[in-house]
Amino acid sequence: MSNYNKTNRTILKRLPARGHYDRELVHKILDEGFICHVGFIVDGAPVVIPTGYGRVGDKLYIHGSQASRMLRTLKTGVPACVTVTLVDGLVLARSAFHHSINYRSVVIFGTANLVEDSEEKSEALLAFSEHVIRGRWNDVREPTEQELKATTVLRIELEEVSAKVRTGPPIDDEEDYSLPVWAGILPLQVIAGEPIADPRLPDEIDVPEYVVDYKR
Amino acid sequence: MSNYNKTNRTILKRLPARGHYDRELVHKILDEGFICHVGFIVDGAPVVIPTGYGRVGDKLYIHGSQASRMLRTLKTGVPACVTVTLVDGLVLARSAFHHSINYRSVVIFGTANLVEDSEEKSEALLAFSEHVIRGRWNDVREPTEQELKATTVLRIELEEVSAKVRTGPPIDDEEDYSLPVWAGILPLQVIAGEPIADPRLPDEIDVPEYVVDYKR
Repeated sequence: MSNYNKTNRTILKRLPARGHYDRELVHKILDEGFICHVGFIVDGAPVVIPTGYGRVGDKLYIHGSQASRMLRTLKTGVPACVTVTLVDGLVLARSAFHHSINYRSVVIFGTANLVEDSEEKSEALLAFSEHVIRGRWNDVREPTEQELKATTVLRIELEEVSAKVRTGPPIDDEEDYSLPVWAGILPLQVIAGEPIADPRLPDEIDVPEYVVDYKR
Repeated sequence: MSNYNKTNRTILKRLPARGHYDRELVHKILDEGFICHVGFIVDGAPVVIPTGYGRVGDKLYIHGSQASRMLRTLKTGVPACVTVTLVDGLVLARSAFHHSINYRSVVIFGTANLVEDSEEKSEALLAFSEHVIRGRWNDVREPTEQELKATTVLRIELEEVSAKVRTGPPIDDEEDYSLPVWAGILPLQVIAGEPIADPRLPDEIDVPEYVVDYKR
């Protein structure tokens, strides 16, 4: 797969080696996460709101109630920034100064567009659902016309995109390596716990495999 | 503890029952997380960047290299928005439409101020370190004068703050409760894996307890 074109604002000024424009890497990060932080401007001030998302090729979809202030603001075509961050571990160095975090993040600059075509809208909602929990869509009642109408779906094209990645052990000052201090990485990951059945669920309904085996 | 004052932009317009202004709840969410997403405006467009943070009372501290564009922009006193999100679980309903996510988030509006007092700066860095991994600071080499000089610390007062929380099982349409579909919550949590020693670490140095027992 090709690279995203670099632009003035996607080129990392500091630590440029951490910057990545590789489409495959960007997609992999986006597919592992499912919560993004969307930035937009209201009355001259930035607002950052967390929300779920789905990806289809080079399109990112977010959705929500048509009453949502975020979606009502974004669909007017104002500039937006969408950021997805995965935290992979704590980097414990021998000096306070060189502590760090291993992470992978994607920053997308662009504008959102309202999805009006009903086929694209349905596809986006399916993609969203499968993105968060694969296999679920087939089991549940599909949206009614009225529910689709009450749902706003926005599309953001992946065009001005960069990833930033830190991996590996701490980088200490040479003279600090002799300090008698444990150093290394403490990996962090998101895991699923025991499913909690809805209080109104009949006993005879089993937990589906895609819930039991859930992994990101 | 008292509540934060509501303002026009911290009052939730949609689903106001999910909005919280309770100081204790806000602090609890901030203390469980350690990555925030900071929004600011560059050339008329929003930028959202993930970074670590620490909290001391009603002050939130972020820090980084003095070369960081984010810190250089923020320290000029431009409006900022800092958002912290904890994802607690997937809410699996009987209909696609009523799927949701259990989460706790905090949104802070304000402006950042450069911490110039060297005592406050040291306290902020200590707070940051203890916030991410308690007990670490005592083990490691403290920052030198030069390292402190190369580090920018910014303070954001917790004044215009709100939390948003969703908990509990799915809320399905009454007629959907009879569908033969598993419904409930799939809890998600961040856990620590096995510590990975730095390749240059001597064998005789043990992993500290605060690493082995790490929890958020």
